[in-house]
Parts: sequence; structure tokens; C-alpha cells
Amino acid sequence: MAAKKWAFEDFAEGSSIDLGSKDVTAQEIVEFASEFDPQPMHLDEAAGRASILGGLSASGWHTCAIFMRLLCDAVLLDSTSQGAPGVDRIKWKKPVLAGDRLSGTMTVLAKRPSKSRPAIGLVTMRSELFNQRGESVFELENTGMFMKREAAA
Amino acid sequence: MAAKKWAFEDFAEGSSIDLGSKDVTAQEIVEFASEFDPQPMHLDEAAGRASILGGLSASGWHTCAIFMRLLCDAVLLDSTSQGAPGVDRIKWKKPVLAGDRLSGTMTVLAKRPSKSRPAIGLVTMRSELFNQRGESVFELENTGMFMKREAAA
Repeated sequence: MAAKKWAFEDFAEGSSIDLGSKDVTAQEIVEFASEFDPQPMHLDEAAGRASILGGLSASGWHTCAIFMRLLCDAVLLDSTSQGAPGVDRIKWKKPVLAGDRLSGTMTVLAKRPSKSRPAIGLVTMRSELFNQRGESVFELENTGMFMKREAAA
Repeated sequence: MAAKKWAFEDFAEGSSIDLGSKDVTAQEIVEFASEFDPQPMHLDEAAGRASILGGLSASGWHTCAIFMRLLCDAVLLDSTSQGAPGVDRIKWKKPVLAGDRLSGTMTVLAKRPSKSRPAIGLVTMRSELFNQRGESVFELENTGMFMKREAAA
């Protein structure tokens, strides 16, 4: 089995990783909202324009899911990730509207070996999404668990 | 327009609201993960069994989205909700596996009028999902904004 690119050792405190970008379409916004968050401003352009969000806007949870896909493609799918116990903080800072292009970065805030599980380490990350105007729309902080390279080999 | 059931005044500190329940199917788990979190334990029963999760398991973000739908149906769609600026904390406490039935509750931790926007108030909530064995699998804390009844009339 090929070694994964990202093991615990490969995350450097203070370093940032480009998460790539994703175009958000009206159809995707409505599909997600129809299943999980059927509030009018996430389902209908006119209702969105009439709301404080100013247009057909993605559910905040859709933005989280888009972020997760970017993190998977850029890091997690080629990593020794062992999941995460939760999230420390999410900020939905600006609306994500149909037609927006979101770009992400992930910065390593801190890392430490696990005391209880010597094969893994904990990586605390702050991730951020920006729209096509460079405005920060989303921030998330959480701690992920990654196997050490030797343990994963 | 009919008055909404849940305005700021209607949330009582310490009270709990039943969020109903949702059966989580293997097909839904795979569909969500294919789009947003394509890690093997969310896509494939055998990979899930081989992981620490013990079976085909929902993405943590899928669990968040299921929670949001329950909150919409029980409260938000018949409320004066003005959205939420973010989330204070999420805990994924146990795996959510194909075939699980999730049930939710939301408890009002605190409420206060907004200083900057007299028409709205802030409601801090702790929500929790349990599986069919009564085990707590998910916790979330956040603060939502709701219009006061008079302002929404």
C-alpha cells in the first residue's frame, strides 16, 4: 500500500494548505436545502432577495459540507486521518449566494502527540473560505486525529 | 399572515423541545458522502466495519444536516428565526450507522434581547441527538436570532 502524503509528522505549525475552489450553483443550493434546511431563502431566489441574505443563499450547513469536500480532496483522502471528535467553532460570516466561487485555505494552529494513543497525534486547524471577491465567508476551527507515519506504514 | 408559533418570547430558559426522529438509511449515508465526504467508511459497508466506526457510518456533517432538518421541522419553519452567526461547539460522540434511528431534543440555555437590534433577541441552545438505544451520539451548541413577536406581526 502506498504511503499517504499527509501523516501527523507532515503538518507544520503555522503552515497553510490551499484547499482549491468550488463553484456553488443555484441547483445545488436548492437540492441541499430541500433535503436538510428548507427555509425559504435557501429554496427560492425571490425569497432570498427579500431576506437579509440578499439572494438565493446556501444553507450554512451546505457551506460546511462544501468545505468538507474541499478538505477531503486537498488533504484527508491522501492522509492518515482518524477522524475528529467534533468542531470547536464555526462562523458564517457572509452569505454564500448562487454563482459564488468559494476558495479555501487550512492553517495548522497547533499539533501534539496523543497521550493516550501513542500511534496518533492531534492537529488543530483553522480553515477559511473566501468568495470570488476575496471576502471571508466562513471560518471553522477543529482538531483532527492523524496516525504517525511509522504507525501507518 | 398567520403569527408564527415560535417568536423570541416563546423560548423559556431551561425548557426542552422534542425534535422528533429520523431513520438513517445506507443509501442516504452513501449519497451524502459521495458528494461531500467521500472517505471509505462513509461509502462502503466493509470499509466501515474495518474502521474504528464499526460499520457504514454517516459523515459527521451528514449528522449535522439531519439535525438541522429536525430543527427546521420542529421549530424554525414555524418561527421568526433570523438565522445564526455560527456554531459554538459540535461533538460527534458516537458513530451514526446505517439503520440507526436518531431522535433529538433542543434545550434553551439562555436568552437575551439584542442591544444593537431592538426587534430581535438571541437564544442560546444546546441540541442533542440520541440513537435507538438511547445513547447520545451528537451535541451542538449555538445561538440563534429570533424576532420579537410584536416586531414580526
